[in-house]
Amino acid sequence: MLTAEIIAIGSELLASDRTDTNSLWLTEKLNQIGIEVKLKTIVGDDDARLEEAIKDSVRRSRVVITTGGLGPTEDDITRKVAARALGRRLLLDEEVLEWIRGRFASFGRPMPERNSRQAMVIDGAEVLDNPNGSAPGLYLEHEKTSVALLPGPPREMRPMFENFVLPKLSLKAGNLRVLRRVLRVAGMGESAIDELIAPIYSQYDNPSTTILFNNTEVEIHLTASGKTESSVLTLLDRLTEQLEERLGNAIFSFRGETMEEVVGLKLSLGRYTLAVAESCTGGLIAQRLTEVPGSSKYFLEGVIAYSNEAKKRTLGVEPILLLEHGAVSAPVAEAMAEGVRKRAGADFGLAITGIAGPDGGSEEKPVGLVYIALSDDVQTEHRKLVFPGDRHLIRWRASQAALDLLRRRLI
Amino acid sequence: MLTAEIIAIGSELLASDRTDTNSLWLTEKLNQIGIEVKLKTIVGDDDARLEEAIKDSVRRSRVVITTGGLGPTEDDITRKVAARALGRRLLLDEEVLEWIRGRFASFGRPMPERNSRQAMVIDGAEVLDNPNGSAPGLYLEHEKTSVALLPGPPREMRPMFENFVLPKLSLKAGNLRVLRRVLRVAGMGESAIDELIAPIYSQYDNPSTTILFNNTEVEIHLTASGKTESSVLTLLDRLTEQLEERLGNAIFSFRGETMEEVVGLKLSLGRYTLAVAESCTGGLIAQRLTEVPGSSKYFLEGVIAYSNEAKKRTLGVEPILLLEHGAVSAPVAEAMAEGVRKRAGADFGLAITGIAGPDGGSEEKPVGLVYIALSDDVQTEHRKLVFPGDRHLIRWRASQAALDLLRRRLI
Repeated sequence: MLTAEIIAIGSELLASDRTDTNSLWLTEKLNQIGIEVKLKTIVGDDDARLEEAIKDSVRRSRVVITTGGLGPTEDDITRKVAARALGRRLLLDEEVLEWIRGRFASFGRPMPERNSRQAMVIDGAEVLDNPNGSAPGLYLEHEKTSVALLPGPPREMRPMFENFVLPKLSLKAGNLRVLRRVLRVAGMGESAIDELIAPIYSQYDNPSTTILFNNTEVEIHLTASGKTESSVLTLLDRLTEQLEERLGNAIFSFRGETMEEVVGLKLSLGRYTLAVAESCTGGLIAQRLTEVPGSSKYFLEGVIAYSNEAKKRTLGVEPILLLEHGAVSAPVAEAMAEGVRKRAGADFGLAITGIAGPDGGSEEKPVGLVYIALSDDVQTEHRKLVFPGDRHLIRWRASQAALDLLRRRLI
Repeated sequence: MLTAEIIAIGSELLASDRTDTNSLWLTEKLNQIGIEVKLKTIVGDDDARLEEAIKDSVRRSRVVITTGGLGPTEDDITRKVAARALGRRLLLDEEVLEWIRGRFASFGRPMPERNSRQAMVIDGAEVLDNPNGSAPGLYLEHEKTSVALLPGPPREMRPMFENFVLPKLSLKAGNLRVLRRVLRVAGMGESAIDELIAPIYSQYDNPSTTILFNNTEVEIHLTASGKTESSVLTLLDRLTEQLEERLGNAIFSFRGETMEEVVGLKLSLGRYTLAVAESCTGGLIAQRLTEVPGSSKYFLEGVIAYSNEAKKRTLGVEPILLLEHGAVSAPVAEAMAEGVRKRAGADFGLAITGIAGPDGGSEEKPVGLVYIALSDDVQTEHRKLVFPGDRHLIRWRASQAALDLLRRRLI
């Protein structure tokens, strides 16, 4: 397997609140053609450290990609330092200079003098067009290593990588196709899932399987490789089918779709409408559903009934239910679901009431206790759940469980 | 200024969906004592690359911190490789071995043989207790450089760094106190802010000022250093005051609080109650408000009136307003705000209607057009705004503007 290193350049990337998203994107793209990223460096606008980073990486790895530091200012040192690290000259390329001048002219402005340094090209390097900015990229084969110097802004870096660099690297990697499929699972824990499916996936090296728990959902990542896309898809399909046999409806997404997208699609296809009544989630369910473009087709109305008054007045919950069972109870959840369905004239009413914390819990009704209910014109059902975590996680998990209840009804 | 490098170790950190959060946290802590991070490396479980990374960093920088690779498995190579990189022996420390054995005994289990490798200590290094795991850390002075090897899990790494490493490094850095203050601004763009305040902040080197636009909000970061906390706070207060004179109420947060926290606090202090009616934001405003613990004190009710029917039925919007002006209009926004206030019996009614896209826009009413309205028992006012961005950003910006309208009323 070919090995790659990624070097992200720029002092601003060393701040405590900046993540290097370019390298994550590049890693994904490189993995897809069967190239493994072995090391990532983030370095400031620092000549000596950058020179060493480039020298080391070119010696160690067969693919080196740098991002950033190609701008027109003094801080933009990548071209100069890379030339030195590779022991090559830096030459002014008249054609590139003309292109940069033309770019400014097209905005009706003269080219600032300092931009001329963006026309400096490392001897032997190919110049990569930048349709979205003034910094061209550079690509060269140095001894056994392919080196690409790309700009930092994602909207300049990404098309340049995909159009010029990716095809070359793919060829070098033997035109391997590597595809990843993400299955998302609801209503089951990581270990329970692993216990069920480990006997299946452990029989395969290709696809390889990883189970990830990302704090809110469990994902099963399948990665397969082969010579053609269709052969890879066949491998993925075969394993997916076997996993689905074991996990059944618990898998809600086969292509990385979110729960709200899946629910929205099912509602759309059945031409159903939905109204939502929320207490502890405070609008989160509605917000997730309406984040999906086109949701106005099926989402009619939401009520956030935080106070008991709102539960009575807007949702028609009988005061006696609140008195006898409390706001966080199965009868109130069901009454909320029925109430909002009738108010909106919707096919489905989905409701949630619970205790998100940090305060408000008791021995009988602890923080994390949630009732969800679903009503249609035939029946109303509920589920009682207890979620671990802080306020944010409890609310998120509760919203997921409510959406999942609706999803299962729609199957 | 002392220079530092951070090395994150572990092949799992090179996946396309993993961010190295440890290094962000460490950067923040190092910056706070006046140490600058000059380079970060993420390296897999790869002997040769890790050895080179450690050697290079120790030569170049006066502080080197590694995280990860201290576990009991074959993959955990940090101790072994660091010893080699530093040219020091690795010795079994009986005392550490006893501590690890004792830790397992306290769970009623014998120590697995492989855990004994966690008792290997680099010659001359100090052993750092790990109250939250079985992997002790190591700390040593190597030539001019302080080297700390810390475990990867944040709940093990963080206390170890704060209790043992931070005091030593702080002393080495001259016991400098560096504090950062984040001012958050609403209702103004990055350039408009910079134009107003650059003449002020450019007069100061200490505090230094950075203006950050994080896609949804503009933040002003002030960083000051000095010998004592109170002297640093005085520097920050003086500049903050001058910036506030220029920007006035546009600064909504002086300690990094979110908009919903600021609004919630003001509602609490005034013992006011609030109800919210949302169309295009689909529950986002309510969701943000109720994410704040204790929000049930002031948040009474929310209505997500996506359909015109819901606007009429639940919010009492006159059909003639919808007919004459359309759902996205100032009169409808005002009627929604009044309607939800009266329905909930709240002091304030906040409403929003707009076009979040991607579809539904027209020449007259483009995607991004939003009306927000605020009603109390004396008056109802509205604002017309047009936001750039995709559906997600438009919804977020609209919710921010609505909350900001309420905040300004509460001042």
